[in-house]
Amino acid sequence: MRLGTLRLSALGDGEPTATVAVRLDDDLAVEVPGVADVGALLAALDWRERAAAADGRRHALAGLEPRAWAPPVLRPSKIVCVGLNYRNHILEMGRDLPEHPTLFAKYPEALIGPYDPIVLPAHAADAVDWEGEVAVVVGATARRLDEAAAADAIAGYAVLNDVTMRDYQYRTAQWLQGKTFEATTPFGPWLTVTDAPPAGELRTVVDDEQVQHTPVDDMVFGPAALVAYVSQILTLHPGDVIATGTPGGVGHARKPPRYLRPGQVLTTSVTGLGELRNDVVAEA
Amino acid sequence: MRLGTLRLSALGDGEPTATVAVRLDDDLAVEVPGVADVGALLAALDWRERAAAADGRRHALAGLEPRAWAPPVLRPSKIVCVGLNYRNHILEMGRDLPEHPTLFAKYPEALIGPYDPIVLPAHAADAVDWEGEVAVVVGATARRLDEAAAADAIAGYAVLNDVTMRDYQYRTAQWLQGKTFEATTPFGPWLTVTDAPPAGELRTVVDDEQVQHTPVDDMVFGPAALVAYVSQILTLHPGDVIATGTPGGVGHARKPPRYLRPGQVLTTSVTGLGELRNDVVAEA
Repeated sequence: MRLGTLRLSALGDGEPTATVAVRLDDDLAVEVPGVADVGALLAALDWRERAAAADGRRHALAGLEPRAWAPPVLRPSKIVCVGLNYRNHILEMGRDLPEHPTLFAKYPEALIGPYDPIVLPAHAADAVDWEGEVAVVVGATARRLDEAAAADAIAGYAVLNDVTMRDYQYRTAQWLQGKTFEATTPFGPWLTVTDAPPAGELRTVVDDEQVQHTPVDDMVFGPAALVAYVSQILTLHPGDVIATGTPGGVGHARKPPRYLRPGQVLTTSVTGLGELRNDVVAEA
Repeated sequence: MRLGTLRLSALGDGEPTATVAVRLDDDLAVEVPGVADVGALLAALDWRERAAAADGRRHALAGLEPRAWAPPVLRPSKIVCVGLNYRNHILEMGRDLPEHPTLFAKYPEALIGPYDPIVLPAHAADAVDWEGEVAVVVGATARRLDEAAAADAIAGYAVLNDVTMRDYQYRTAQWLQGKTFEATTPFGPWLTVTDAPPAGELRTVVDDEQVQHTPVDDMVFGPAALVAYVSQILTLHPGDVIATGTPGGVGHARKPPRYLRPGQVLTTSVTGLGELRNDVVAEA
């Protein structure tokens, strides 16, 4: 099952900020009436049944404008990001595998829809980098779970690009300020509900050039291990997101470094989870 | 004007989790009817007038149990914490003053009321440290403000102790996981609404020993500068909290290091803003 969130204004009705959760059936989006987004849907204990039974208005996917697609969870109560977590990349750099996951935060204001433009902020446009990632979406309240129970608390997966202002990231030792610029993190295109951790490949492409690719089962800390670890620290709620880290190939590590420029198109995909496609534009 | 949040169950009525915002008049708490906490109150554009005019049930402060006091803002949409920010402490360590504030996050699950016990988590009880701080509470939507406009977006101030699990903080280079343990950050006792940045002294006391004290006007980045800086990155919303950093005197920097132990009482106060008082207890 795939679940998304659509902006009603792009469907020809509704307030500019109104949205609706949808189930995606092949080439149709079927509204879950009265539910504003996938986050609100996941908050119901019987969300799987409600989503499966939803029978609201139908929209042909082919007829939807890109701007119709909102982040599937509009405002997760928290987004936890994971630092270096791909085994191949850590080993190729000659480092030891970490004993504990590196965690940092992103505030929900950072999120944009899967096809929204990434607007480079005028005062922070010079070192904007890509970080393609698998996002875990939590589907149940999770507190002090072991890995098996943590796996059951995962609703499914989506794609996220942890777009990062490297200049701000490295202004100080703490990365937060480079990771949480307003409206710069594409997320989606939808939540793929599944019990199986993602397999296949993550790919990040700038224009036509593939800049990152990795098998996504090569994480040091997999999805269930991450949910279990975070749940020892605090409660995860339905709709919370864990961004599981990026592989090698970021622009900042290249010689010379490369960053996103207006006019480019950033594409981020994971096998089976869909593709984000975002125009990079200068701030007006 | 002082504004707080009380737990109705401790007033003899209401669901276990129900709360109400109150205005504190001398020795009385006056309910703001129908408003669950100071965060919900601040979300109204005319919150100053509503708070001043509120005329609900009255409770003698002397009759309130300590557990009646909730964090004034129950769930800020974000809590931004500031690293090393006290000039005297930075200079005494022989460091240069920073050019940019160090920012990191704390999720709202970390907050507890001003007199709630700090329960040391069984698996993270060995290196729990104090960090007394002034908390800025945002009173208006703040986006890309200069320092003068940022000052106007501040509702007022409260006291916060950024209680930190040093072992988790230093497991990796990113501090988040040591800073956001569930229910370990006392906040309050109330919001003091004022246009004037705090003056006077911050004091942290363990049992009867003063372990931190500083003049609070000695910040490198003062409250308005911090709101202005963060607002360049993303939108601050009413009820959001900026914890402005801690001065010297933390337990981890002592030789030998000292940490909080069950049976101790942690007291954190700022001149004019009140006092947090928290028993330190072992997890059952």
